[in-house]
Amino acid sequence: MFVGFVGLGGMGGAMAARLVAAGHRVRIWNRSPEKLAALLGQGAEAAASLPAIGEAAVVISMLADDSAVRDIFLRQGLLAGLPKGTVHVNMATVSLELVRELVPLHQERAVSYVSAPVLGRPDVAAAGKLNIFAAGAADAIDAVQPLFDAIGQKTWRFGTEPEQANVVKIATNFTLACAIEAMSEGAQLVRSHGISPQVFLEMLAGTIFASPAYKIYGPLIAEERFSPPGFKATLGLKDVKLALAAGEAAHVPLPFAAVVRDNFLDAIAHGEADLDWSVLARVAQRRAGSR
Amino acid sequence: MFVGFVGLGGMGGAMAARLVAAGHRVRIWNRSPEKLAALLGQGAEAAASLPAIGEAAVVISMLADDSAVRDIFLRQGLLAGLPKGTVHVNMATVSLELVRELVPLHQERAVSYVSAPVLGRPDVAAAGKLNIFAAGAADAIDAVQPLFDAIGQKTWRFGTEPEQANVVKIATNFTLACAIEAMSEGAQLVRSHGISPQVFLEMLAGTIFASPAYKIYGPLIAEERFSPPGFKATLGLKDVKLALAAGEAAHVPLPFAAVVRDNFLDAIAHGEADLDWSVLARVAQRRAGSR
Amino acid sequence: MFVGFVGLGGMGGAMAARLVAAGHRVRIWNRSPEKLAALLGQGAEAAASLPAIGEAAVVISMLADDSAVRDIFLRQGLLAGLPKGTVHVNMATVSLELVRELVPLHQERAVSYVSAPVLGRPDVAAAGKLNIFAAGAADAIDAVQPLFDAIGQKTWRFGTEPEQANVVKIATNFTLACAIEAMSEGAQLVRSHGISPQVFLEMLAGTIFASPAYKIYGPLIAEERFSPPGFKATLGLKDVKLALAAGEAAHVPLPFAAVVRDNFLDAIAHGEADLDWSVLARVAQRRAGSR
Amino acid sequence: MFVGFVGLGGMGGAMAARLVAAGHRVRIWNRSPEKLAALLGQGAEAAASLPAIGEAAVVISMLADDSAVRDIFLRQGLLAGLPKGTVHVNMATVSLELVRELVPLHQERAVSYVSAPVLGRPDVAAAGKLNIFAAGAADAIDAVQPLFDAIGQKTWRFGTEPEQANVVKIATNFTLACAIEAMSEGAQLVRSHGISPQVFLEMLAGTIFASPAYKIYGPLIAEERFSPPGFKATLGLKDVKLALAAGEAAHVPLPFAAVVRDNFLDAIAHGEADLDWSVLARVAQRRAGSR
Repeated sequence: MFVGFVGLGGMGGAMAARLVAAGHRVRIWNRSPEKLAALLGQGAEAAASLPAIGEAAVVISMLADDSAVRDIFLRQGLLAGLPKGTVHVNMATVSLELVRELVPLHQERAVSYVSAPVLGRPDVAAAGKLNIFAAGAADAIDAVQPLFDAIGQKTWRFGTEPEQANVVKIATNFTLACAIEAMSEGAQLVRSHGISPQVFLEMLAGTIFASPAYKIYGPLIAEERFSPPGFKATLGLKDVKLALAAGEAAHVPLPFAAVVRDNFLDAIAHGEADLDWSVLARVAQRRAGSR
Repeated sequence: MFVGFVGLGGMGGAMAARLVAAGHRVRIWNRSPEKLAALLGQGAEAAASLPAIGEAAVVISMLADDSAVRDIFLRQGLLAGLPKGTVHVNMATVSLELVRELVPLHQERAVSYVSAPVLGRPDVAAAGKLNIFAAGAADAIDAVQPLFDAIGQKTWRFGTEPEQANVVKIATNFTLACAIEAMSEGAQLVRSHGISPQVFLEMLAGTIFASPAYKIYGPLIAEERFSPPGFKATLGLKDVKLALAAGEAAHVPLPFAAVVRDNFLDAIAHGEADLDWSVLARVAQRRAGSR
Repeated sequence: MFVGFVGLGGMGGAMAARLVAAGHRVRIWNRSPEKLAALLGQGAEAAASLPAIGEAAVVISMLADDSAVRDIFLRQGLLAGLPKGTVHVNMATVSLELVRELVPLHQERAVSYVSAPVLGRPDVAAAGKLNIFAAGAADAIDAVQPLFDAIGQKTWRFGTEPEQANVVKIATNFTLACAIEAMSEGAQLVRSHGISPQVFLEMLAGTIFASPAYKIYGPLIAEERFSPPGFKATLGLKDVKLALAAGEAAHVPLPFAAVVRDNFLDAIAHGEADLDWSVLARVAQRRAGSR
Repeated sequence: MFVGFVGLGGMGGAMAARLVAAGHRVRIWNRSPEKLAALLGQGAEAAASLPAIGEAAVVISMLADDSAVRDIFLRQGLLAGLPKGTVHVNMATVSLELVRELVPLHQERAVSYVSAPVLGRPDVAAAGKLNIFAAGAADAIDAVQPLFDAIGQKTWRFGTEPEQANVVKIATNFTLACAIEAMSEGAQLVRSHGISPQVFLEMLAGTIFASPAYKIYGPLIAEERFSPPGFKATLGLKDVKLALAAGEAAHVPLPFAAVVRDNFLDAIAHGEADLDWSVLARVAQRRAGSR
């Protein structure tokens, strides 16, 4: 398949590499061109300009946030240049608000919009083991399924409204933030009683919570290994705000999200914005006066 | 080993049966004698009276709550009759306050006190697959280790102060309550956006949260299967209150525990006291006006 | 003084009437022209068109929300037509984000921007008893002080950055929302113990809390008089979101704001969006199962 | 009237002095006898022993907490020695649990139990300006009304069940704690935006919140005058825990109480246990990283 790919950061680069490796024709473009070299070496082709991305049948975007999407697709005009029938697959975690703005703009141009945010860090992407949450018109998803198969281990379909996949991604990240906060509070509770948080967290990750989330974040919390960040506190705050906004849109109180939001603000107020979001553990520790 | 066992409810009965099956001499006593029959048939022996329990070298108690322990060991005098050198293993989830009261009373009588609360439901107990959290004098734990081996798949040692095992049990149940609340809020967020909570929870339990906790509670929440209860909302409230009290004792704020406490009260105020504690999902649903 | 006034709803209309009564020349414009008749009868003059408002030396706006301000001043171009040296006094409760956007746009045109949100309901405005929170260039505030004197009983100056007055207004409304929530929870606590909320709230408003806030909202809560609304739940939610956003901008956790936000969502989810924001009392009552 | 009075701390001493000044015969007893001298000089009479207090027709107690009441009335046996027909007026802030334990014990002895906690600090007590919350049998309250008239400016009757007065006192202190927390969060919000918390709090206390609560606590917060304490953080925590317990007893979620509880723990964890409970302001400041 002929794919245009914009947004080649840690995640996007790994995903594009999988597509190339699977034999697809992948044309790439990035705001910072220095990221392109490795992919070109693997067989991707450089877009002569941003509009040249639109010559592909499918355009995948994996941009940093809402404003990057608005910049590339609206201000710089990528959307306006897409031919009728193109499928645009947005695989980033963006706000519902943005999706609600983009969907009619795509419809006007007869361009299909598929939301397909992914679950997994860059190493998971490189291994082609992402979980993909897809929503949008069934035929459009069917059309790009071979691409998803190259990138992910499984595609979960959540509906025909693109925003539904975004809600699932937002809810998933929210649930993960909650798990980190729960580990943080629990670890502080045992620490303040003279018990090793490490053994406690190992026990959790070895018994009822034996799962990637607890196996990844338990040791980060136990060893206070918040740097280098896998996912920064500022991004954690961004995501919990997406959850709060999605809750507001549907009138869903989310008291856990409110707690996590405040704790990310506490972290950021203490100069921890660029540490891993598991720095929530440090907030719990600080509030208990134990650091 | 000669073991006296008091408290033969769903958990205690299954644990005593494991001891009998492993060849230990098990003398049993229960406030409601009708629970004894099955065990007697399997080879346990009935205590002629409560004090006769004290003739065993080790006394295991698995009583419902703090007040039951106070009743049997203090008011009815079981502790006062234990010979010097007996080991009392309390395997129930009780408050730190009770442990702090019992430890010196045991010391006065030269009776060892071991805290060994367990993780697992009755079916796990029957299979001998419990996780046991032990704390107390190392030699006393060593002495009863063969009993733990008959009951559990693993013994986790958390220190020489008995209450440390209780803190770990309390923190574990708290973390589990948080996972239920997080699943509940996340499920409601997707439901209110027209997405199936079932698929969402299956995805969580099949990906980053692939663990017993999410595999057990995800379907209960998705199918609203709150009855019959595996663990009642009232017990959930009791446990989160133990966490709050343990936090207070060490000056640890626990904002997630506060949210869960309020939501259990909301459930109980709506006549859901005797439903499974995953009824937190119904609270989230009710607050969002979707039932 | 020659004043242009846009936004003549309940508050704006009463404020404009005070200016007319004080002898100022007041030119008025409103999106819904039917609101103008009464003021014209009192001596105000109708603007032939929106740009004609800009012929006055001072333009006061009292528009419903951020988007109304953006519409009138940016999209419809009122700002672009203001002569150099005009003073624009924005007396509405708007977001910090909007102020940060407007201030440089005014500076470019050499138009002074004064933030002057007010404290008080329409009846207070009609009596000229508002409290006015002013921030902006000192000479600009000095220039419009005679107008403030006609409208309010006191002008509180909070700094030379316009947004500072908005922060104060946002923080004030937040504190008021907290008082309503506290009364609501306290009233429910006594009600659930068989005590009259009415006597309890009368006592509060007659003793340590003897102040307008408790005297106004105590009876509304006690008598469950949520309709007609003085200030709708949706506006309460809007204001608490402004507080949360202002907190985020400066990294200030606001746990009370988070609770209030969730409770407004609960109200809205139960069809209470258009009731008075003291409907927080009904949320407390509902959660306690007593309605 | 012949009154026995136990518990002569700051509050109790001032109240007893009012009774003496009003011409009542007041017999006094205190655990720390050094507190008695001043009252004896004013005309009170010393009880030869604790039981001699019981010779009075009315026994007023103003003891520090639940355990002091249990100690004096139960362990030391004051209650057991009271003649039939005595009226015991407990004017301290105690738990519902204690009242529920004491009421039947009094009934057994045909001693009337009146709950009459008071609102006001020691200087208010000295001026005879307390507000008294009374509940219990109407004839018993009628009988002691002359004593209340000597101590307070107004007696508010809340029912015939003694505990109802305690619920009101608990709910009142809870509402006051919420006001302090709201002022604290609001003050931090403005401080973090470069605005003087002092002017903000003065404005609140001069406008919609013009009441003793805001006039007393506003300046304490603005000037960070947490020492000497008028009411310690530990007592604030005790009171909010009474509110949470009263809420639990009646299944009333109290999310504001939960926030305040956590913030008192944060204060205590930072060595601020003995500062005034308005130290909640410092917690807000610390969390925002501004100290």
